[in-house]
Amino acid sequence: MNSLDCLFKPRSIALIGASADEKRLGGVVSRNLRAFRGKFYPVNPNYTEIDEVPVYASIRDLPETVDLSVILRPAPEVPELLAAHAGKARCAIIVSAGFAETGCESLQQEVVRLGRELGIRLLGPNCLGVFAPYQRLDTLFLPRERLKRPKKGNVAVVSQSGALLLCLLETLAVSGRGVSLGVNYGNAADIDGADIYDYLAEDLETGVVISYLESMADGRRFVAAAEKLAQRKPLLILKAGKGESGQRAAYSHTGRLAGKYEVFSSIMRQSGIREVRDLDELLDAGHALARQRPSRGNRICIVTNAGGLGVLAADECARHGIEITPLPEAIRQRLHNCFPPFYSVANPIDLTGQVKDDEYLATLNEIQDEYDGFLVIAHTGVVGLTLRLAELLTVFRAASGKPLVAYLAPGGITDQLAKRLEKGEIPVYPSPERAVRGLSSLMNYGQGPCK
Amino acid sequence: MNSLDCLFKPRSIALIGASADEKRLGGVVSRNLRAFRGKFYPVNPNYTEIDEVPVYASIRDLPETVDLSVILRPAPEVPELLAAHAGKARCAIIVSAGFAETGCESLQQEVVRLGRELGIRLLGPNCLGVFAPYQRLDTLFLPRERLKRPKKGNVAVVSQSGALLLCLLETLAVSGRGVSLGVNYGNAADIDGADIYDYLAEDLETGVVISYLESMADGRRFVAAAEKLAQRKPLLILKAGKGESGQRAAYSHTGRLAGKYEVFSSIMRQSGIREVRDLDELLDAGHALARQRPSRGNRICIVTNAGGLGVLAADECARHGIEITPLPEAIRQRLHNCFPPFYSVANPIDLTGQVKDDEYLATLNEIQDEYDGFLVIAHTGVVGLTLRLAELLTVFRAASGKPLVAYLAPGGITDQLAKRLEKGEIPVYPSPERAVRGLSSLMNYGQGPCK
Repeated sequence: MNSLDCLFKPRSIALIGASADEKRLGGVVSRNLRAFRGKFYPVNPNYTEIDEVPVYASIRDLPETVDLSVILRPAPEVPELLAAHAGKARCAIIVSAGFAETGCESLQQEVVRLGRELGIRLLGPNCLGVFAPYQRLDTLFLPRERLKRPKKGNVAVVSQSGALLLCLLETLAVSGRGVSLGVNYGNAADIDGADIYDYLAEDLETGVVISYLESMADGRRFVAAAEKLAQRKPLLILKAGKGESGQRAAYSHTGRLAGKYEVFSSIMRQSGIREVRDLDELLDAGHALARQRPSRGNRICIVTNAGGLGVLAADECARHGIEITPLPEAIRQRLHNCFPPFYSVANPIDLTGQVKDDEYLATLNEIQDEYDGFLVIAHTGVVGLTLRLAELLTVFRAASGKPLVAYLAPGGITDQLAKRLEKGEIPVYPSPERAVRGLSSLMNYGQGPCK
Repeated sequence: MNSLDCLFKPRSIALIGASADEKRLGGVVSRNLRAFRGKFYPVNPNYTEIDEVPVYASIRDLPETVDLSVILRPAPEVPELLAAHAGKARCAIIVSAGFAETGCESLQQEVVRLGRELGIRLLGPNCLGVFAPYQRLDTLFLPRERLKRPKKGNVAVVSQSGALLLCLLETLAVSGRGVSLGVNYGNAADIDGADIYDYLAEDLETGVVISYLESMADGRRFVAAAEKLAQRKPLLILKAGKGESGQRAAYSHTGRLAGKYEVFSSIMRQSGIREVRDLDELLDAGHALARQRPSRGNRICIVTNAGGLGVLAADECARHGIEITPLPEAIRQRLHNCFPPFYSVANPIDLTGQVKDDEYLATLNEIQDEYDGFLVIAHTGVVGLTLRLAELLTVFRAASGKPLVAYLAPGGITDQLAKRLEKGEIPVYPSPERAVRGLSSLMNYGQGPCK
């Protein structure tokens, strides 16, 4: 068993601070954990049962040693509660706030010391813990009415900030995308980002890792773990606390210095780890990498039916160093011969408002060997486009094996078409520029950073 | 009457190519124009009436000289049709494509010459024309099932590209925002961007202008018109065709050279005209400027209940040169005294997950004189936040008269709260970084560009 399997794939869980009252955090988590696949032991001296599940007065009373204990009691009670875990738990999530982040350093140190003494690995304190849909493990203290949960998928979300984990999970859930794991590690008193990266490098359910980060205790160890992970699967990092004011903000958020951003960024670049600029880009790049295999090449072709949208996309490509190389003359000639004279056969290729579904496919077939990736743009309000386009693009993409993403202008049949493209593993983005940024995460792969 | 009132506020309209068949473009536009506030004359030799409205065989047969004629017939027929307009129309929109943009320069020149001879101003060719909700004027040939129309508002949308006009109108409609006017001027053979800017400088219904642009025929005149407009009301320009590939793309789209982008950009900067980076920023900045008065100052305070989101916002401020100055010590002390010790009283101010509605207001009241603008960030999944927050922020914003925008993390009560804030003239953005970009359009105003 991997050392963190007890945290991410436990077979048994205790909840210290279980409650029958769903208005309390303990009640929300009790409810979430009733769906857990393994054995669940609620612990609370004031109950004997909750919804016909027997409740234990102390973790000492459990009939077995649990893999994971979730501690949901006020900070001052935590040391005594943790001491009672001796021989009864392999690891623990300390959800409670009120440790180093509020200046209570000594309380946090005491807890770390105890964990070490007892051989119990700790996540937190001051964290939301783990959402692991394959295990039906959910320690997030927000009810489902307040936070939608994403379905099963291949993206792991690793966040130092709780709010960011919630933002990312809700956004993924609303857009119908899945995760393999969501974790917020808070104060990182024991288990930190590096430990989690080490675990995810081996995790079979995880294909891509997206990670929000403000600071790290041990930079060298963090970089080593990130590098190792990035060699196995795509790792995208959003590092916050960049400018002076951002660093000040990060310091008062976690009580840790964010460190010189330029140094961090240059190390990431040298290690081939992809750093993203903002929250949208973290999601957009993660979306592309969760669906398609990246390409080592860097030359793309834009196929559009709306000239202006192609121009905006071309501008964005220039900002990301993606090459929009001209069409080879022979291909240009062949396309010119089979299309009406007012189609613009260059790169971008503009099939105009007269386009029919099949002409997108004919174009892509003609150019597929010349380019490393494709951006399909469509204004779907025109009469020649139907939902069949999704089928044609899906089949083309799967056969070509090359990156292909789409931007569909709002209106027309866009909503339905987007759903079908997404089903066909083609990511659809909400603006031409974001589509380019999504595609850029699939280009120039293993050749250093994309920007 | 302003020279372009005949185009944007006509009292009478002829439609050359009217049709009863709503599957044809002429049928769609006939239907749209039946809602027009003024007099509508359908023209088509093959009909005598459409839905009980009498149809004229030729524009020559109309009982009056119309302000506006909309020509929806194939390009080769246009010169003859236009010649028949002698004395019968003050201006015309030539919707038809197949002129300079497809290489038919001479056909376009013939039409321009005819227009001049007859004293008829021309919009187009190769354009969608005008959407003017105050006049119920709608020449867009997309049925409402394929393109939603925005309600009445104070934003004018001016686009060289038809697809971009449609994108912008649909996005505004879906998000419940309004426009004063939407216009796509296509090949700009006669009326161009500069003419439209001149008109909008005087237009009482227009408070803000957002404009998509690839190229201009007369750079000097364009800049003069843009400068004059920008002195009256905010003008935001998205110039496409920036890099080498983008310029090539713009050239094949409109048959015009996009010009050296750096030169354009530097002139815009010197003239105090705000250039935006991409489509999202055009919408985001337009949204802020449509709702609130900009400030000449540049110092903002971020009030959040989620540390990480505050840090990301602070990072984005640094990119836009917005100052996040520290709280004055006296204010810091006062806030510290009235809040729990674990609130982080710095800038950003982090009220944590324990926040209650009133504490946002108490904070804003305390800091309002020290800052030029405010970014409110809220994770609304926490129990202390209710819809009352919208009311408190709306009243504060109206009283302070300073810019205030919001980012609400997804989930919780965000959807309802966002709707109420928007009603209260507070723009709500879909990411912390976009909120900062929206706010940045309101800061540092009249002091040169924000970036």
